[in-house]
Amino acid sequence: MDSDIHILSARWVIPVVPRNTVLEQHSIVIENGNIKDILPTQEASTRYPNANVTDLADQALIPGLVNAHTHAAMSLFRGLADDVPLMTWLNDHIWPAEGKWVNTEFMRDGTELAIAEMLLSGTTCFNDMYFFPNVVARTAQDMGIRAFVSMIVIDFPSVWAGSADEYFTKGLDTHDEVRSLSRVNTAMGPHAPYTVSDGPLERVRTLADELNVQIHMHVHETHQEVADSLAQTQQRPLERLNQLGLLNPRMMAVHMTQLTDEEIQLCAQQGVNIVHCPESNLKLASGHCPVSALLDAGTNVCLGTDSAASNNDLDMLGEMQTASLIAKTTANDATALPAWQALEMATINGAKALNVQHEIGSLEIGKSADITAINLNHISTQPVYDALAQVVYSASRQQVSDVWVQGKQRVKNGELTGADTQKILNNAAQWGERISAANQES
Amino acid sequence: MDSDIHILSARWVIPVVPRNTVLEQHSIVIENGNIKDILPTQEASTRYPNANVTDLADQALIPGLVNAHTHAAMSLFRGLADDVPLMTWLNDHIWPAEGKWVNTEFMRDGTELAIAEMLLSGTTCFNDMYFFPNVVARTAQDMGIRAFVSMIVIDFPSVWAGSADEYFTKGLDTHDEVRSLSRVNTAMGPHAPYTVSDGPLERVRTLADELNVQIHMHVHETHQEVADSLAQTQQRPLERLNQLGLLNPRMMAVHMTQLTDEEIQLCAQQGVNIVHCPESNLKLASGHCPVSALLDAGTNVCLGTDSAASNNDLDMLGEMQTASLIAKTTANDATALPAWQALEMATINGAKALNVQHEIGSLEIGKSADITAINLNHISTQPVYDALAQVVYSASRQQVSDVWVQGKQRVKNGELTGADTQKILNNAAQWGERISAANQES
Repeated sequence: MDSDIHILSARWVIPVVPRNTVLEQHSIVIENGNIKDILPTQEASTRYPNANVTDLADQALIPGLVNAHTHAAMSLFRGLADDVPLMTWLNDHIWPAEGKWVNTEFMRDGTELAIAEMLLSGTTCFNDMYFFPNVVARTAQDMGIRAFVSMIVIDFPSVWAGSADEYFTKGLDTHDEVRSLSRVNTAMGPHAPYTVSDGPLERVRTLADELNVQIHMHVHETHQEVADSLAQTQQRPLERLNQLGLLNPRMMAVHMTQLTDEEIQLCAQQGVNIVHCPESNLKLASGHCPVSALLDAGTNVCLGTDSAASNNDLDMLGEMQTASLIAKTTANDATALPAWQALEMATINGAKALNVQHEIGSLEIGKSADITAINLNHISTQPVYDALAQVVYSASRQQVSDVWVQGKQRVKNGELTGADTQKILNNAAQWGERISAANQES
Repeated sequence: MDSDIHILSARWVIPVVPRNTVLEQHSIVIENGNIKDILPTQEASTRYPNANVTDLADQALIPGLVNAHTHAAMSLFRGLADDVPLMTWLNDHIWPAEGKWVNTEFMRDGTELAIAEMLLSGTTCFNDMYFFPNVVARTAQDMGIRAFVSMIVIDFPSVWAGSADEYFTKGLDTHDEVRSLSRVNTAMGPHAPYTVSDGPLERVRTLADELNVQIHMHVHETHQEVADSLAQTQQRPLERLNQLGLLNPRMMAVHMTQLTDEEIQLCAQQGVNIVHCPESNLKLASGHCPVSALLDAGTNVCLGTDSAASNNDLDMLGEMQTASLIAKTTANDATALPAWQALEMATINGAKALNVQHEIGSLEIGKSADITAINLNHISTQPVYDALAQVVYSASRQQVSDVWVQGKQRVKNGELTGADTQKILNNAAQWGERISAANQES
């Protein structure tokens, strides 16, 4: 009778809710993909005598990580153009490459590479904005990871759509398609204030309300973006978004490196979600998101990697560490953004931003069994005084040993269970060779 | 006749000298621990037909990494006290713990753990400052890594010495002992301006000249250090060091987060070496070392991890990435500290600071075969457009597959060849339990 019950018995369980807690020698009981119980391991065997038990004697269990901002398929452009500023990177490298290379095959191969990297580094849910969201959705469903795909909207034509109208039409078609997928949802994806005009933004707001989905948007990424807006419209982008009614709890505002004290208060009052992408902001010298001030004001701040082309990885463990380190120096306070808070940003805060905090983001009874196991019996994570700090400050992605999504094991002993890693690597290498060869010719 | 010759045939060789170069399908020829030749792989087999060949078809070879500032044995305090500022961390946590726990057994076990972590992450040389440098020296020699151990000097008593005189005596004894070790050298190690008074500093200068060794010192780590010095002596610490004749090419000034434009010029003119420890500075909110300005002024800037208790790892790949990201944001310029320059800081610049640039720090004919192989055929480092950028921005320590020091293989397929990893892990775990138990009692 207990045979459908699976128990993970771990050295440490870090549930995230309740806050800043490490449970020693605890077990998580899983039934039908959900967390049925969390209890001391010595009680688990008596209470569930016939369950299947997985022994994780060296592991810390954390909620599956939530990557709140990706452009997954851009992993095929990883390292294509480094050490250049954002607008050069976009205008001279990324946008031309996208125009030339992005098609459904590229999307499938690039998204597979990205999902493989995310699962192997403990991410169980990602929020993507890119072209062909229908392909991203199908690939995520096939590979067993949760995804939110954006109905992307831009004023100008791309490989995906020729006009604002076509972006909406194709986005809505994707939304309808995705309804049949158990692990995928959508969001509205207006690219950025400087690429989407008022008309489409008003439609975004209406559709988000009607479809009950979040709004995923790059906002205040650089000083230049704000300066250009002021020069052109005498308004800062956030002021314009506020007038358009877009600053509300549906909004996931990505980057937000340029914020006045008044804007921080406004975001807190309006319930705007902030998606902080520290490594991308550093690498492109975009600026610092004032994370501590936002958190102090009561804003929900979560974490994203941005694309592998600007980061250059999709590693949320690294992003947590960077977020914590950079928040301390930005706030000039070594106590700022302690380890437990960085872990909240990478889990429950991401779930809140995506409006799925009832389902994922913490290890709590009744939630989905989206769980990441990290092996701390490693030369670079011993001794262990505080398992939570060790996960944030010392552990690296290759210490992720096992990952479950909806109770299904997607990573086992550091290997993908349901994908052909060698094939994914070969596909990536082939795209790299093709793109390099074309660049050398031109 | 060629049987004493060993060839490493790699997909990429990144020699560091010449600058910003990636050689494809090249081989490094090793004889008697030194690099005898570097040539295209297809020529290597004809020129050295009887050599032993190691095929590294997925690897990039880089010079062994030089970690220019460590307190190796503090790895046993990793995670003991996170999210607190420097002086709290020292006064309330680290210094009491050192007084209670540091002895020769602790030093041996802690240094073994640190060296294991360093070798496994591609570091082949480290510059250490801690108590019992004789134990550090012997452990490094035994484990096959290069080390510089500091003759530490502090005004106040410690577990190592009771007075400035005793620090010098014991330091000089260590210097004499170390002369018989093939991989270990010494440096003078005055701890910091605020812990060493003028008399001992004058003696440090004299001894450094007489023994022909470098001077390894924490300088301008925090704003507080500079402010305290100004309040007490109306001088900034660098001014005092300059008056004492310590600002010269022997000086390895660690941290240097507080620098005026005049001080940057002074350091450049005097040939002072700067040791940048970005992750430690971020985590303790100490400030930003103006790396780009220092490099532009012509200063030699190298990289260190600081201790695992303030970092929280000894991973030079991570440190390179952080150095590059943080330099861009500090300089407000995405082109600042490009990948090739970060790699120079972690290799040849460290060798220059230690005054061994004729022997290590680059892959050049005649230099020692201190070589690190990084496997880029990995989900998080494919495709490869630029192997050098991939090493700095995407590769992580577990992709270090093989490491040679003086031509001897110390890491093979990601495992230590000459140490018992399980024993090192067990020792570390036992220290952790002992220290945790004592902390809970008190």
